[in-house]
Amino acid sequence: MSHIILDGRVVREARLPALKEFFGGLAKPPVMTIIQVGDRPDSTAFIRAKSTFAAKVGVTVRHIHLPESITQAELLSVIAENNKASDVHGIIVQLPLPLSLDQETVIEAIDPTKDADGLSAANVKRWLSGHPAALYPATTRGVRELLSHYRIDIFGRKVAIVGRSMLVGKPLAAWALNENATVIVCHSKTPDLAAETKQADIVIVAAGRPGLVSAKHLKSGAVVVDVGINTVQGQKLEEEVGRRLVGDVDFDSASTVASAISPVPGGVGPMTVLALFENLADLIRKAY
Amino acid sequence: MSHIILDGRVVREARLPALKEFFGGLAKPPVMTIIQVGDRPDSTAFIRAKSTFAAKVGVTVRHIHLPESITQAELLSVIAENNKASDVHGIIVQLPLPLSLDQETVIEAIDPTKDADGLSAANVKRWLSGHPAALYPATTRGVRELLSHYRIDIFGRKVAIVGRSMLVGKPLAAWALNENATVIVCHSKTPDLAAETKQADIVIVAAGRPGLVSAKHLKSGAVVVDVGINTVQGQKLEEEVGRRLVGDVDFDSASTVASAISPVPGGVGPMTVLALFENLADLIRKAY
Repeated sequence: MSHIILDGRVVREARLPALKEFFGGLAKPPVMTIIQVGDRPDSTAFIRAKSTFAAKVGVTVRHIHLPESITQAELLSVIAENNKASDVHGIIVQLPLPLSLDQETVIEAIDPTKDADGLSAANVKRWLSGHPAALYPATTRGVRELLSHYRIDIFGRKVAIVGRSMLVGKPLAAWALNENATVIVCHSKTPDLAAETKQADIVIVAAGRPGLVSAKHLKSGAVVVDVGINTVQGQKLEEEVGRRLVGDVDFDSASTVASAISPVPGGVGPMTVLALFENLADLIRKAY
Repeated sequence: MSHIILDGRVVREARLPALKEFFGGLAKPPVMTIIQVGDRPDSTAFIRAKSTFAAKVGVTVRHIHLPESITQAELLSVIAENNKASDVHGIIVQLPLPLSLDQETVIEAIDPTKDADGLSAANVKRWLSGHPAALYPATTRGVRELLSHYRIDIFGRKVAIVGRSMLVGKPLAAWALNENATVIVCHSKTPDLAAETKQADIVIVAAGRPGLVSAKHLKSGAVVVDVGINTVQGQKLEEEVGRRLVGDVDFDSASTVASAISPVPGGVGPMTVLALFENLADLIRKAY
């Protein structure tokens, strides 16, 4: 089927000037603190991608790189300092953290008015309830902006979400529901995935399983958004994170029936980085 | 079809002795503070139902009845006092509040370790993420215990939820998802409700529309749970709240195809009251 490519790099470039203008119009460049604990290569790569984009839009990234041996108390005091610092407008703790640290406690320590990832309880409640000032987590916002750019409206449509994580599947479901879609959430315990996804107008896949969704999972004309970022040997290189990536969708197969489809790399990934800085702009704009 | 009645009054009676024994075994009777603002007759009726049940299980209800003219600051100071009081283990603010008060701010003022309704942000994040110590809001817990009593397992089943409120539809969806059901959430903007619900093994209706779901919405053998509590002239009286109530399900029609169905009154309503005190028991049992 002839299909539209939902091109995250194109959309991100299109949005970049407005964001740059907004940040440039502030009295001084805003600061986004990114806290990294340990040396996971994927975390280092994601932080590099965020830093590169930040430079383009005029945001100063304060990368605080801490050793894996740091104690929880020490990490919390670093967060507390950044909560207090009036020049810092956004704080991200790069996940996952080492198992020696309690991820929930650490996330909750971030001032909700600086929580650019939208993961603290105050923000979770807001995006779940559809509060007008809600900040959706970056991946969800990235999917939203990607569909919006291509004028794909989900109001009254049937949206299938494959995956149910707190970082991606659940906020995607909340968003789609708040936007008046009928939403079905499928996952590893769904007995017949294809039977469910085949009925959906829009299928968003965030399962972390390479090639899970193919043509047989889709009705003709479906819109397919691939949130998967799986590192696989010998696959295409995502320049910005310097890794070889493959999505959760078998692109060659799915694109034979889809009316629109996002590739990996170059689909949701670049949008997620953009969305993080759109969230930062919202944090600065609004009295929380 | 021959069907089982999911009888909330029977289940509540069956659960009452264990709850009474638990509360009776404490050093002194626990206190549940119920704060009412204004004189809505439905709120008064619900509080009466909760107080009657509390007396049966050995919980002291401290009913704080405030005038509609109270200011937000005054209400917050009443909550703060109850947060501090070491003999108070649970605090409920009866909803809805008058429009002059900001419901979200008021709910967030309740100490999460005393939030028996599970509506504060800290608890919302927990039930959404499926945290083992999560307290689901009372209606969701009531539905869970009702199904569990009749040994209806939702693991791997398809559950349709009709309604998407923060009080009922969304926590029900989170719970069903966390229990490994495949979950579809339908609502007023779903173009063909019957087409969706007809595919579900279990249909839970919380839409606030009398008689919305009937036989044509159900597959043969479906389990139907009716969360609706609509006050309608000339209908059956729910003794405990003293109102004439009708559900969201056309019982006579739906029961011709359902394998199990909850009535209104006498289904989820009594279970919700029970669940509130099961939540209180969990708050007392656990260091939050």
